[in-house]
Amino acid sequence: MGVRAGIVVTGTEVLTGRVTDRNGPWLAEQLRLLGVDVGGVLVVGDRPDDLRAALRFLSTEDVVITTGGLGPTADDLTAEIVGDVQGRPVELDAELERHVAGIIERLMRGRGLRADPEATAAGVRKQAMVPAGATVLPPVGTAPGLVVPPPEGGTGPVVVVLPGPPSELQGMWPAALADEQVQRALAGRSELRQETVRLWGTLESELAATLRGYELPGLEVTTCLRDGELEIVTRYGPEAQPEYDRLLGVLREAHGEHLFSTGPTVDDLVAGALADHGLTVATAESCTSGLLVARLTERPGSSAWVLGGVASYANSAKEALVGVPGEVLAEFGAVSTQVAAALAEGARERFGADVGIGITGIAGPGGGTPDKPVGTVHLCVVGPDGRQPRSVVLPGSRSAVRQRSVTLAMHMLRQLLLGGPPA
Amino acid sequence: MGVRAGIVVTGTEVLTGRVTDRNGPWLAEQLRLLGVDVGGVLVVGDRPDDLRAALRFLSTEDVVITTGGLGPTADDLTAEIVGDVQGRPVELDAELERHVAGIIERLMRGRGLRADPEATAAGVRKQAMVPAGATVLPPVGTAPGLVVPPPEGGTGPVVVVLPGPPSELQGMWPAALADEQVQRALAGRSELRQETVRLWGTLESELAATLRGYELPGLEVTTCLRDGELEIVTRYGPEAQPEYDRLLGVLREAHGEHLFSTGPTVDDLVAGALADHGLTVATAESCTSGLLVARLTERPGSSAWVLGGVASYANSAKEALVGVPGEVLAEFGAVSTQVAAALAEGARERFGADVGIGITGIAGPGGGTPDKPVGTVHLCVVGPDGRQPRSVVLPGSRSAVRQRSVTLAMHMLRQLLLGGPPA
Repeated sequence: MGVRAGIVVTGTEVLTGRVTDRNGPWLAEQLRLLGVDVGGVLVVGDRPDDLRAALRFLSTEDVVITTGGLGPTADDLTAEIVGDVQGRPVELDAELERHVAGIIERLMRGRGLRADPEATAAGVRKQAMVPAGATVLPPVGTAPGLVVPPPEGGTGPVVVVLPGPPSELQGMWPAALADEQVQRALAGRSELRQETVRLWGTLESELAATLRGYELPGLEVTTCLRDGELEIVTRYGPEAQPEYDRLLGVLREAHGEHLFSTGPTVDDLVAGALADHGLTVATAESCTSGLLVARLTERPGSSAWVLGGVASYANSAKEALVGVPGEVLAEFGAVSTQVAAALAEGARERFGADVGIGITGIAGPGGGTPDKPVGTVHLCVVGPDGRQPRSVVLPGSRSAVRQRSVTLAMHMLRQLLLGGPPA
Repeated sequence: MGVRAGIVVTGTEVLTGRVTDRNGPWLAEQLRLLGVDVGGVLVVGDRPDDLRAALRFLSTEDVVITTGGLGPTADDLTAEIVGDVQGRPVELDAELERHVAGIIERLMRGRGLRADPEATAAGVRKQAMVPAGATVLPPVGTAPGLVVPPPEGGTGPVVVVLPGPPSELQGMWPAALADEQVQRALAGRSELRQETVRLWGTLESELAATLRGYELPGLEVTTCLRDGELEIVTRYGPEAQPEYDRLLGVLREAHGEHLFSTGPTVDDLVAGALADHGLTVATAESCTSGLLVARLTERPGSSAWVLGGVASYANSAKEALVGVPGEVLAEFGAVSTQVAAALAEGARERFGADVGIGITGIAGPGGGTPDKPVGTVHLCVVGPDGRQPRSVVLPGSRSAVRQRSVTLAMHMLRQLLLGGPPA
């Protein structure tokens, strides 16, 4: 591929995980789908030397994109360092200064804070310092973005400086792409296709055994295991389409019984099936305590098919809110197939839904017994045509057990609604 | 600081955001708390040249840690490339091969899959290829880790090769740290202290104005805004303790009314207060649909104070499961202060909890009106001594509105239970 880009994510809070970086992956994906080859993402703290080293490492790329470090505090220093590395010292842009000051004032008034222009003036001035010859991208939040060309008469990448908050960065992305210098740097990129195949219920080692025998010229295949799902992403240029078609044939032949999708996620499939069939769903969750209903409602418009759910953490709540009979709880215990079924039936009945799902288990780290070790989870889906139970012992941390249970429940819904590989 | 480390996270699925990297930040934090200076995290795809370039970029560090790329598929190539860069070609470790084969066989039997040793043998052999002179760290999952010294007689970093799944990586970390060569490379690190101050209800620009006037020698201050909370993390050597004490005094004086913690998170504070006072809590959520109760139950042992919650997405569920009067819904609409209060009261009553929380709002992107735009959220907490309502219009995406509402609810709980800055 002809055009290469690198990404630098700045911020000590990102480097140390206090904030999860969403910008690097988002930008990498956008660029790759544009046909730009992304070698890597560098995450560095708020230290001038580390940012400088990162920019130098990427000095042979065509485009470099930085995120973060555009705020008013002293640890925000991206514009200055980028200007320095590009041989373009920063200078005050007076018009930008007035513009940012106006934004801050409106923001503070909106929060009912007294606007104190003097106290914030230094921060505003800092945000209006622009490398000589750079193009300013208008702020989406308070921080402007920048397109900084290589040194006058020199070579090197165009550096696009974007703010850290993902909504501001994504809002500014179209303006960055439309910039004339960015356009010029990106000219010559080539079309890239991307396809995803999803398997459920098999192991990565089985897939590896299948793929080992095949040459896959022109295909970049990445496999990834997540919550029990195996995702196979393939990227290729248009000329390798026949190769991809052959790969898909191989996967269908070797793993057809586990292949549940050649594109959409399990969430897409479940939402689509509920919407298409005009069915509604409700949940009753114990160990996952709301995670499943939160996931089902992530999607805009989901109120058309999700009626709601009960997180019945206490046994009293399982009885009072979902109608699990006290004698079932007493006889089999809260973590049992019987209670999972009663939760699913209860959710269906109490919410008046077509489909009910019940989950009960021991997420840990405490609460396990020899009979019911940590990770024991019982699930049940109940639809108009009957019920499907499932019992598993899941490995991993409390959080892993909860997440994995929710993904398993999604596959039980998928199987009930659409068939395909058993959950 | 004397000892420096760099981190390389491998995997096209991480680079493109299909999997969120948790390893880079986790390792960076562990190393920094050990007193090791981390310059940056490099995320690269599964391509030999990009991994090689990343390792070369970090060739002046004392220790380099890689994560991922140790699986059985052809895109997993870390051991080979690290061996290559360290001048130590890989060779088969027959004992390790038998060990990994045994793990795979047990794993497949546990999943009820027929074990086919021949099909998986090539993948197993690949996982047992070890750079000459490297130390093997025993597998936590299926993949072994490695400690790979610099070239025989040469200089350069010790490279620690760890698996990608966070639970495997974290499980292997103590063995990696205990390794003799790693210990030698880390000798000479210096103690680093870390303190966190948390503000609620102020703007980053106000904080910037406060800090601008002060010299902070020996302190590395990072500020970070998240869901309306302002987090100020300071790292420093023991000699700078008086400077830190001075900074804390300045923050207390300038932002005392917004300072809600000098350590614990709002989640810690709420859980601690509920446990200490022997109080129970229940939720009724509309737009956040289970996210709040899921967050309250993330903590082990939370069943002692969380009774449960209702995600009452449909109006019928608000009436039937939480007892919101139909006439209140009809008169004021589902998104109203009145319904938020009725949800909080209903949650408290139906679950028999001491404290109830109600949330109703328009998360978007659809459903907004001129009177009730997208982002409108009404919340209410009800305790033994009365109720606290709150109404806001939150900016951002559907996901941002939902997350921010949940954080606001946590602060309303904090304020009800402990006082401090108003939510």
